[in-house]
Amino acid sequence: MRVINVGLLGCGTVGTGVAKILIENRNLIRSRVGADLYLKRIADIDLQRDRGIRFDAGVFTSDAHHVVDDPDIDIVIEMIGGEDIAKDLILKAIDNNKHIVTANKSLLANHGIEIFQAATKKGVDLAFEASVGGCMPIIKSLRESLVGNHIKSIAGILNGTCNYILSRSTDEGSTFENVLAEAQKIGFAEADPTLDVEGIDTAHKLAILTSLAYGMEINFNDIFIEGISSITPMDIVFARQFGYTIKLLAISKNTGDAVEARVHPTMIPFDNPLSSVNGVLNAVIVSGDAVGDMMLYGHGAGMMPTGSAVVGDTVDLVRNILSGATGRVPMLSYQMENIRNVPVMPIDDISIHYYFRFAAVDQPGVLSKISGILGDYEISIKSVHQKGRQTKGSVPIVMLTHLAREADVQKALSEIYNLEVVSDKPVLIRIEDEDGYDD
Amino acid sequence: MRVINVGLLGCGTVGTGVAKILIENRNLIRSRVGADLYLKRIADIDLQRDRGIRFDAGVFTSDAHHVVDDPDIDIVIEMIGGEDIAKDLILKAIDNNKHIVTANKSLLANHGIEIFQAATKKGVDLAFEASVGGCMPIIKSLRESLVGNHIKSIAGILNGTCNYILSRSTDEGSTFENVLAEAQKIGFAEADPTLDVEGIDTAHKLAILTSLAYGMEINFNDIFIEGISSITPMDIVFARQFGYTIKLLAISKNTGDAVEARVHPTMIPFDNPLSSVNGVLNAVIVSGDAVGDMMLYGHGAGMMPTGSAVVGDTVDLVRNILSGATGRVPMLSYQMENIRNVPVMPIDDISIHYYFRFAAVDQPGVLSKISGILGDYEISIKSVHQKGRQTKGSVPIVMLTHLAREADVQKALSEIYNLEVVSDKPVLIRIEDEDGYDD
Repeated sequence: MRVINVGLLGCGTVGTGVAKILIENRNLIRSRVGADLYLKRIADIDLQRDRGIRFDAGVFTSDAHHVVDDPDIDIVIEMIGGEDIAKDLILKAIDNNKHIVTANKSLLANHGIEIFQAATKKGVDLAFEASVGGCMPIIKSLRESLVGNHIKSIAGILNGTCNYILSRSTDEGSTFENVLAEAQKIGFAEADPTLDVEGIDTAHKLAILTSLAYGMEINFNDIFIEGISSITPMDIVFARQFGYTIKLLAISKNTGDAVEARVHPTMIPFDNPLSSVNGVLNAVIVSGDAVGDMMLYGHGAGMMPTGSAVVGDTVDLVRNILSGATGRVPMLSYQMENIRNVPVMPIDDISIHYYFRFAAVDQPGVLSKISGILGDYEISIKSVHQKGRQTKGSVPIVMLTHLAREADVQKALSEIYNLEVVSDKPVLIRIEDEDGYDD
Repeated sequence: MRVINVGLLGCGTVGTGVAKILIENRNLIRSRVGADLYLKRIADIDLQRDRGIRFDAGVFTSDAHHVVDDPDIDIVIEMIGGEDIAKDLILKAIDNNKHIVTANKSLLANHGIEIFQAATKKGVDLAFEASVGGCMPIIKSLRESLVGNHIKSIAGILNGTCNYILSRSTDEGSTFENVLAEAQKIGFAEADPTLDVEGIDTAHKLAILTSLAYGMEINFNDIFIEGISSITPMDIVFARQFGYTIKLLAISKNTGDAVEARVHPTMIPFDNPLSSVNGVLNAVIVSGDAVGDMMLYGHGAGMMPTGSAVVGDTVDLVRNILSGATGRVPMLSYQMENIRNVPVMPIDDISIHYYFRFAAVDQPGVLSKISGILGDYEISIKSVHQKGRQTKGSVPIVMLTHLAREADVQKALSEIYNLEVVSDKPVLIRIEDEDGYDD
């Protein structure tokens, strides 16, 4: 039986999950694939830690080049993360004719084209299912299952930390700061949570999905990103009263001439299946012209679920090696020559529905002033609710709008903030409610 | 650019969807695949019907052999359905070295092994994603994405007609008969709904998934099947009071030495994501040792969603042809020589939780008699609710049990039915609630 040697760069959390599956489920994988996947070398700086797995003697090395330069290794799995070292090692491995599996979303979002071109030039495969949505086969779905569809849009909950924080805030009415502190305690949030809570990790994943869905290059900086740190329990409660849940969504839409690509807290109606995806779970809905809406749902992170996706990718590459089919599925879902430059619509040009909350002095005429400014900018109000009475000398005025243009909204809100009767910065939350909203 | 010729057998609802995608999205598919998929011939008995698509002249034939015998056709898509003609044509096409795409679940559930062996012998591929779950990539997930996982269980809503009827009964309190009649009127149920409402269609799909998940042959007759025709609005209401939704589930579990494979109305807790899958939508949860629980969710039937899956399969085979990689993924997920004979556990041997409803005469001592018999069979009651007062001279007594063995339950219920104080046949609904149930 043919042996395919695999090398692993980085044996942290997910790397350990990958090793565990390759070693403990080795017979299972062999019975399916018809070849033996052997984890020949693992490079990691920590050679001492007990990872709870029985490794063969001599598998570990502290020098990553012992992996990428090993002539017997067919596939290199990069689980280091980050952009610098990982990028150098991947490019070196490609140069050595290794096929690559990675889960490195920031690397692909920022330097994907360079890496894909290097792989194409060398004729090696590069697989990255685990970079988006952990265990969920979203990349395989876009590149293979949905190949007959014009993809119209993607909407996803792609960061477990944010979804955990928002879910707990929703259930318990706790503030962002309190839930974040608890999430850090139990390991659901990093010590420096910026990448997660500010939406950057979600945007990395959205960049990858957008590129695959529509066959385009995307400049990561063109993605609009707003995190969840300013979401308050008060807005979560108001949202629920209107029939909405607040989720951090990655949204991308194909409008034909341009695409929308944005990450922000979003109010979605209760009957949107994403609204009941709670805790650290992830989910993504893809809409295609033939398939309609299809949702994938599962663990978006974690040692074993992400490890499962990495092993799935590895076996894909093994099967390509065994059948001489490298390059069978184009890495970016489209043939390289068909990848277009499609402009990303600036957030200012987007028209959607909005939720506003104003902190206004409780006196006559305030509502008229606010709605006058909104009217000046052609922002049409669907409903107004003045909720409760004074808190700290002001009352919250909550509004939902009909379709409005973001640029107009920003100008109007800035003008409203300048009113003497408005005490705090107005709150804006975007709404996605295509089916239920009567415009 | 290489042209791959495709032939279509049967241009009914799904066949038309397939043709529509292949013709109208031909350029899109070409830009992804790097080859031209040409729908060269279509065989159907109805040559007159306007299918709303611009076909090339001379594409249609009324003789299926013009498709399966055409030496220029590389891939034959079988969309006829049923077992006799479809089987003969598939075997003929295989014999002519055509690769096959089919959505024919009854054929595969009943004659799969014969067809897979014929394809293996001839060295052609046979793909059947659309046979289970319409658009959802459940077969691709089992064979590829989850290849590193020991699959522990599968639970799915796999029949849109049943789910539509149960959802509407739940929302409106209507009887099975009334909702079925309406579903037939709007085309969500067949004139003869037996295959759907009696769970047979769901069982066909379960047979296919069970076989792929655990690498085994399965005899369709070993699957326990109970349909939804006896589910009453009263039981739906009681279920909701206990925190459960009633769904027709396909359930398969791998216990190591044996598998469970059963289709029956099932009470699942509200926090099970399957409980909020409503209307004609389908969903399936796969549990693996690495991946945890992963759910796929979408349209399980219909012209375009099923067509999307068929085209996905077709492109998979095209990519195998282009890269000379036929047989790249084993049809049954495991290498043929590793497919085992695993016994299916008889329903009598299964231990689960139960919901019972007894129609009892409203007099002292009845509960004692019923619970006495249950006790004799070691069926331990978790809770009893005597709901409301007399209807037609009897009161409903509702019980939830701790884990109990089906054989004991059947004997006990039969003995209880013989009690003079019990007027109707006792109602039994099985419960799946692994997480929430304190045993």
